[in-house]
Amino acid sequence: MAAAGSRRLPRAERERQMLDAAVATFARRGYRAASMDEIAEAAGVSKPLVYLYLNSKDELFSACIRREAAALTAAVRDAVEVGATPERQLWSGLLGFFEHTAAHPDGWAVLYSQARTVGEPFAAEVAVLRSEIVDFVAALLTAACGSRDVAAYAHALVGAAESLAGWAATAPDPAPTGRELAASLMTFAWSGLSQAVTGRVEGPAREESGRAG
Amino acid sequence: MAAAGSRRLPRAERERQMLDAAVATFARRGYRAASMDEIAEAAGVSKPLVYLYLNSKDELFSACIRREAAALTAAVRDAVEVGATPERQLWSGLLGFFEHTAAHPDGWAVLYSQARTVGEPFAAEVAVLRSEIVDFVAALLTAACGSRDVAAYAHALVGAAESLAGWAATAPDPAPTGRELAASLMTFAWSGLSQAVTGRVEGPAREESGRAG
Repeated sequence: MAAAGSRRLPRAERERQMLDAAVATFARRGYRAASMDEIAEAAGVSKPLVYLYLNSKDELFSACIRREAAALTAAVRDAVEVGATPERQLWSGLLGFFEHTAAHPDGWAVLYSQARTVGEPFAAEVAVLRSEIVDFVAALLTAACGSRDVAAYAHALVGAAESLAGWAATAPDPAPTGRELAASLMTFAWSGLSQAVTGRVEGPAREESGRAG
Repeated sequence: MAAAGSRRLPRAERERQMLDAAVATFARRGYRAASMDEIAEAAGVSKPLVYLYLNSKDELFSACIRREAAALTAAVRDAVEVGATPERQLWSGLLGFFEHTAAHPDGWAVLYSQARTVGEPFAAEVAVLRSEIVDFVAALLTAACGSRDVAAYAHALVGAAESLAGWAATAPDPAPTGRELAASLMTFAWSGLSQAVTGRVEGPAREESGRAG
């Protein structure tokens, strides 16, 4: 019955089910421990069908990385309020990022905990995603402040956001919500960036960066 | 001549030379590609001597992680000006971190690029180091502002610092100096933290975090 019912699904829908099952399994069991048997069972299909669609565990994992990376990037891009003030753009982008990672903890675990630590070629795929997000943030910051420190701020902001989302995934109960995380990072980061917009530099940084290093 | 000369070295000094060679080799070649032959050659000793002292490539790599982690943690702890203002403590800690990672790029590469991406048990060793640094930063922030967001700020600050140091290691010429990186992160982070000290929260964060979420 299940097999007959599932045969009617179009290929794209069937593949989506397999990827959903694979992301959940990789996130919870880890890349190495996860088996194709478990993934097939979680997807409600036979193991040969998973191989027919996705070829190998490696390719299945790569497909998970690509899908989750594209979804995260799209969530951030779509969230940023184009044409708003820099402050509002930052807030909307942070909210988009943290609400997406909070709503898709398995996808975030695949990108942040699994793909980066399993080694190559997966770490390189995640590095490409990361550099796209850094470039996107840098472009927004360039538009806002045009500072020569824009690259540094973009890396600082992306690193801070990753670190917070990673912490939230393992944080004590109750875990902070996406909105709370966005508010924390907004408080942490914005005033610094607002100073950058107006070209002012804080006390010790100004004092010290002027000295011979 | 070299062998006769090197036989006179005390064990601790010999081991230090081997670890220096191992850190440089792992950083440049990667954990998997690095061979015990290369490491022995770089240390100017025989391969059996490396095995005698450090047992295996895995144990050698673990010893590198422990040494570089301890050095980094000590650099940050020693740099923080105890009893100074929170602003000054932050600046001195950031400067300690970035000057250490700039001066020891191979050690940083072992911790940040190699150990985290090679998988277990090494990723877990680095995770322990990281949580110690987060706890240390959180304790400083608690003393400074006692805010309930201290854990979030500590994770944001550590993530931002890691991301900047990682970027600097692969940045275009001329790479930013440790002092420049510290100044960038100081500018980025401090004003946000100063608002936290006085209990003020920025506009959008205050507006939004008050809404049902």
